[in-house]
Amino acid sequence: MIPIRSVPEVLARARDLSAPAIEAALERLSPEVRLAAEYHFGLVDEVGHRVAATSSGKGVRPALAVLSAEAAGATAEVGVPGAVAVELVHNFSLIHDDVIDCDRERRHRPTVWAIWGVGRAIIVGDALLALAQQVLLDTDAHQFHLRSGAGGGTGGAAARCLAQATADMIAGQALDMAFESLPGIDVDRCLLMEAGKTGALLGCASSLGAILAGAPPATTDALREFGVQLGLAFQAVDDLLGIWGDPRQTGKPTGNDIRQHKKTLPIAAALANADGRAGELTHLLELVELSDDEVARATALVELCGGRAVAIDEADGRLAAALASLDHAGLDARARDELGDIARFVVAREF
Amino acid sequence: MIPIRSVPEVLARARDLSAPAIEAALERLSPEVRLAAEYHFGLVDEVGHRVAATSSGKGVRPALAVLSAEAAGATAEVGVPGAVAVELVHNFSLIHDDVIDCDRERRHRPTVWAIWGVGRAIIVGDALLALAQQVLLDTDAHQFHLRSGAGGGTGGAAARCLAQATADMIAGQALDMAFESLPGIDVDRCLLMEAGKTGALLGCASSLGAILAGAPPATTDALREFGVQLGLAFQAVDDLLGIWGDPRQTGKPTGNDIRQHKKTLPIAAALANADGRAGELTHLLELVELSDDEVARATALVELCGGRAVAIDEADGRLAAALASLDHAGLDARARDELGDIARFVVAREF
Repeated sequence: MIPIRSVPEVLARARDLSAPAIEAALERLSPEVRLAAEYHFGLVDEVGHRVAATSSGKGVRPALAVLSAEAAGATAEVGVPGAVAVELVHNFSLIHDDVIDCDRERRHRPTVWAIWGVGRAIIVGDALLALAQQVLLDTDAHQFHLRSGAGGGTGGAAARCLAQATADMIAGQALDMAFESLPGIDVDRCLLMEAGKTGALLGCASSLGAILAGAPPATTDALREFGVQLGLAFQAVDDLLGIWGDPRQTGKPTGNDIRQHKKTLPIAAALANADGRAGELTHLLELVELSDDEVARATALVELCGGRAVAIDEADGRLAAALASLDHAGLDARARDELGDIARFVVAREF
Repeated sequence: MIPIRSVPEVLARARDLSAPAIEAALERLSPEVRLAAEYHFGLVDEVGHRVAATSSGKGVRPALAVLSAEAAGATAEVGVPGAVAVELVHNFSLIHDDVIDCDRERRHRPTVWAIWGVGRAIIVGDALLALAQQVLLDTDAHQFHLRSGAGGGTGGAAARCLAQATADMIAGQALDMAFESLPGIDVDRCLLMEAGKTGALLGCASSLGAILAGAPPATTDALREFGVQLGLAFQAVDDLLGIWGDPRQTGKPTGNDIRQHKKTLPIAAALANADGRAGELTHLLELVELSDDEVARATALVELCGGRAVAIDEADGRLAAALASLDHAGLDARARDELGDIARFVVAREF
């Protein structure tokens, strides 16, 4: 695997551009919603006092949106509403997922529902989704005003892309929930779910700046494909970290996904290849609570049955496909290289 | 008050146009989401068998959207995507509200969360909201395809209107939730909340068809104002029915809103005027559980203190304002009259 790299400078540059725009968007929320939203974004504590900016993720999605505008020959600023919108949609889904999964902590802080209750968390997520659409559609209102031209601009097309990605993401989440109650684990179903849950929004982020810039379909399609493939690579890495990740880096116990009975790609692939060991692995995975020894044995079996190799191949193959999709779209060379850097950075986590 | 009328023919006509389009939109949902959504819309039972169409409301919102297109001189069909979108947003909010309010029944059937759990209900609501945006934005994609022209059409402007109304509706809901935990009841705050919860989406529905038809701002603004005022009239009537409604018609016990400690307009207005009786009324409203006699006494006190009269005046005044807003916008005469019929029908429920 590719060695881990330092955070590309481009992530910091995109964050500097998009963070103030995200804050400005959150200011549009009604007071009852805004506090919890700003808390979730790590801007304030639970009583509304400003806190030193805590990490709210690596900022890969906004960086993709900003670079997507530059890749299409526009300025980074053109991509900023896209960066804001994808961050809002991503965080809408996190807030609702925390309710659905009954997760009381995220990024070492209590989740929105754990502080303000399920009802408020539902409302706050809903508000972020509506706001994301407003941010994109308002770019048309501004263009309309500035140009005094008839008809909409590129904001409508961007909003359409985002609404489709949101729908796909929700479908992936629904498939995941249905999956959990099924007895077996199926590799194809697993990949389909991951395409929806992770690929759709990264594909949208990677094309949104170019759509806002009015780029032709060949360009926006190539960028979307880059993001979709990157999303699948990212998810495969996440699945690997969920089993073999270093607890000091993931913040979760060793073999976390096995303890939590998650149906991820390495496990699905191992079961499909298990042959004589299938009985033992299935038995271990069905235990309500696994001891540390049982987790270690199940982890070893998943690797012995090829689950780890399949996920590593998936990550490598998807990364290669992502990079290849950038080659034939007439993109700005510097932005294309920076998109490549982000892709390698995202996939190159240690496990 | 105006006597109750039979359902205007226009509601049936709008339903005939919009119902198949709503069904077609729901077919775009992923299977895991679609069953619960179709169940909620009264199309199937909980295992997916088709049922005889149950009442899923009076269909006022879709009728307003369709008439709004006609009022702007377009065909009813132009307003249909607007009718679908407002119904999807309205039902997204119902599904989430049922979770928030822990309501296990709606229209004499178990609610989505009562059957499939909170997680599924959250996801299904989210999916309907994303779908509503898609339905409007896709009208631009079709126009783009048909006309081979550059830029978007009217779908982007319609989607912007809907996103704003959704945001306002959520703000109203958030205010309502905050309101419940406050000790007092304030008339202004009550009206502000009702403007968000009911006025915003009816205002959007009433202008959406005209926006899709490309009508000028003077027309769409007048139609929106009609809908906002109608929403406030409707809400005042709903508040009256919540206290004085006939249980056989409302399906809820006499004095339901008093039993449930709801902070509605008649109660807020009565408390503001209560003078010497304020102590008794406040005491009754603060009881955790009220006997039938106590409900009857509190109901009588709300009327004695003028709460009923205030709400009736509000309903009448808002209806008059709604009708007045239709006079100066150069609307198609027949559609304008039918909008008036709907407004009088909505407000003329017995109480």
